[in-house]
Amino acid sequence: MKIYRYPQKEEWARIMKRPQIDSGDLTELVIQLLNDIRNRGDEALFAYELKYDKVALTSLRVTDHELDKAESLLPTELKEAIRTAAQNIEKFHASQVVEEKRIETTDGVVCWQKQVGIDRVGLYVPGGTAPLFSTVLMLGIPARIAGCSQRILCSPPNQKGEIHPAILFAAKVAGINEIYKLGGVQAIGAMAYGTESVPKVYKIFGPGNQYVTMAKQLVSLRDVAIDMPAGPSEVEIIADGDSNPAFAASDFLSQAEHGADSQSLLLTSDETFIELFTREVELQLNQLPRKDLASKSLQNSKVVLLRNDKEILDFTNEYAPEHLIIQSTNYNTLAMQIRNAGSVFLGPYTPESAGDYASGTNHTLPTNGYAKSYSGVNLDSFTRKITFQEISAAGLNELGPVIEIMAENELLQAHKNAVTIRLESIK
Amino acid sequence: MKIYRYPQKEEWARIMKRPQIDSGDLTELVIQLLNDIRNRGDEALFAYELKYDKVALTSLRVTDHELDKAESLLPTELKEAIRTAAQNIEKFHASQVVEEKRIETTDGVVCWQKQVGIDRVGLYVPGGTAPLFSTVLMLGIPARIAGCSQRILCSPPNQKGEIHPAILFAAKVAGINEIYKLGGVQAIGAMAYGTESVPKVYKIFGPGNQYVTMAKQLVSLRDVAIDMPAGPSEVEIIADGDSNPAFAASDFLSQAEHGADSQSLLLTSDETFIELFTREVELQLNQLPRKDLASKSLQNSKVVLLRNDKEILDFTNEYAPEHLIIQSTNYNTLAMQIRNAGSVFLGPYTPESAGDYASGTNHTLPTNGYAKSYSGVNLDSFTRKITFQEISAAGLNELGPVIEIMAENELLQAHKNAVTIRLESIK
Repeated sequence: MKIYRYPQKEEWARIMKRPQIDSGDLTELVIQLLNDIRNRGDEALFAYELKYDKVALTSLRVTDHELDKAESLLPTELKEAIRTAAQNIEKFHASQVVEEKRIETTDGVVCWQKQVGIDRVGLYVPGGTAPLFSTVLMLGIPARIAGCSQRILCSPPNQKGEIHPAILFAAKVAGINEIYKLGGVQAIGAMAYGTESVPKVYKIFGPGNQYVTMAKQLVSLRDVAIDMPAGPSEVEIIADGDSNPAFAASDFLSQAEHGADSQSLLLTSDETFIELFTREVELQLNQLPRKDLASKSLQNSKVVLLRNDKEILDFTNEYAPEHLIIQSTNYNTLAMQIRNAGSVFLGPYTPESAGDYASGTNHTLPTNGYAKSYSGVNLDSFTRKITFQEISAAGLNELGPVIEIMAENELLQAHKNAVTIRLESIK
Repeated sequence: MKIYRYPQKEEWARIMKRPQIDSGDLTELVIQLLNDIRNRGDEALFAYELKYDKVALTSLRVTDHELDKAESLLPTELKEAIRTAAQNIEKFHASQVVEEKRIETTDGVVCWQKQVGIDRVGLYVPGGTAPLFSTVLMLGIPARIAGCSQRILCSPPNQKGEIHPAILFAAKVAGINEIYKLGGVQAIGAMAYGTESVPKVYKIFGPGNQYVTMAKQLVSLRDVAIDMPAGPSEVEIIADGDSNPAFAASDFLSQAEHGADSQSLLLTSDETFIELFTREVELQLNQLPRKDLASKSLQNSKVVLLRNDKEILDFTNEYAPEHLIIQSTNYNTLAMQIRNAGSVFLGPYTPESAGDYASGTNHTLPTNGYAKSYSGVNLDSFTRKITFQEISAAGLNELGPVIEIMAENELLQAHKNAVTIRLESIK
């Protein structure tokens, strides 16, 4: 953890620098895997599951029996928590449905947008020691609300050929019943191209390691849409002299435990707060089971002492954090001036964990400064807005001459004719 | 123009096939140009303007004097038409502003989305014989409504170093005053990386040739967001025995004149209509100044006779046309079942030209089947939705235990701690 005191503006860019990821080496391998999956389908999937997940599968799809069994294995308490989180996620994302508004732009010229779910979506949830069942809810629930008719989930099996029961249960709660045992590049390739077992989808969502990220980028060039470019997770915390240093430290560390390439920033204009805060980080770090991992990512983490709120806001909007926690007393005033961030957590009792799991907002968010141009996953991500228009004879009479002049000046005579021929018939 | 009568479902995929574009050869060149622009900045831009646009520029930015002169050069009638179109585009896109809705997902847990304009956007408008001033309106007006604070436009100059006055005037109407004389890869590279003269932007919009498309794809992998993947323009028309064959033919041809790789499809279940239609196409084609171009793209164009509305809808939703014109008598019934299309034009008096220019809807739309996963450009394209949440002490008391259980089961102890430490302080 490095502390910067009153850095000059020229130094900001260097302080904001994200941990670099070098993915140069894996491009060739990922291209090769993807091509093989496209050509050989299931055969390639089985081969790579054996090679990478060390499991000899004979079928990919999770059965109803496996789903039922998963439910029976989970503690009631966890199932209840998942259901409660699901309700909140559902409530918030359902509020994002856009109602059709018919706009008469000119008399007789009516235009509207219709929000329509993407028919086929594919969700990827990584495996590993920690089962990310919360991600299943974050992707599966908006997909259902959006009206995506086919929703499939891929997640890597363990060496016994099983997906973690919490992931399967969360899928059931989210209304996903088409689940495939596939990890990494296999999952992305299968969903992008389709195989004998796995249907091709139109858009792929979800986090993953560098191989998954690279595979998603490659298939997005031609074959399928993806949610957003991915990078390591990050948090920025803004605090003042009245903030609770233990709260701030706990948020700082909850980011750090994500992985060695995670980044936490603390911004404050109160010098004494920094001392209290660093002491708390030290204290809490020692009690963490993932202490080693967190210590490592603390090396990417920074405390920045700035002159005033104006500097704090400028720095924040330039950094564009994935997660932004504002614990300063004037958090509402600051929040109104935030232009670049993925998700913002306001006040002392709003830890990032709330949004990661259960408050209702989505936790799939733009990292690496992408918040400057991308939203986090929300209902829009699972829908398209199709525009419709209907023009009456009177409407075309009114607007037609405008279209004719413009088409003519763009040297598009046939575009003009399409109006002229109609205007003549109306006369 | 090829006619398919009652094709079997197995043949549909072949009929739907878009004209193929082979961009393999130009990747290397585009990468080389982009790298050079990133390294040498303005110097590279001037060199490539000389090489590709055959003009020796000494400065890139269009001056106020040039803007005023452009306005004085245009006929009043065209200026009036541009202003009218701008008003409609403004009205429709302004209706897409999303109001903040605060949702209390659990007592004391309040979540909302805030729609915020992307701070810096770059718009590209190609040059060539036909000045696409309509595209300036389609991109510039939503960018202004969205609150994008910096909006820049690049468009290639002619050999005298001038941008077409209609493009400059449309930019003025759209509220863009930062315009650079740059075409092709130069424009995309300059906006993606920034140079001495041209600011770096966060998202790039606009059509272009294969070089521009490739450059946009390449910079979108790391440096900047883009509007959507691009392909040749296309239209599908649905008609029945009561449709006006001359109207349908005029729409068919207005697509065909876009370029040799454009595609027009006509779908009908009325065999006699086909004869009337093809005769009209023949007739109108002969009167077009761009006859050669249109004839060429008619080779990609197809008339498909299907059995009934069900087949027509299935075919359409699988093809996912950029533009869809429904002229059948029951157009409203059909429209309700459209799931995959960019923009839909309903009834006899709604030619595609209306949406291309002046009705108010956007004309930057997903081609090549991308309508299955992408929307056309709309207000969302120029904004992000940032989520906010605020939890009261009581709210955290209520929801905290749910978060704790979930975090613990994902083995994220620090995520749990961030809640526990707060719950303990509330007690």
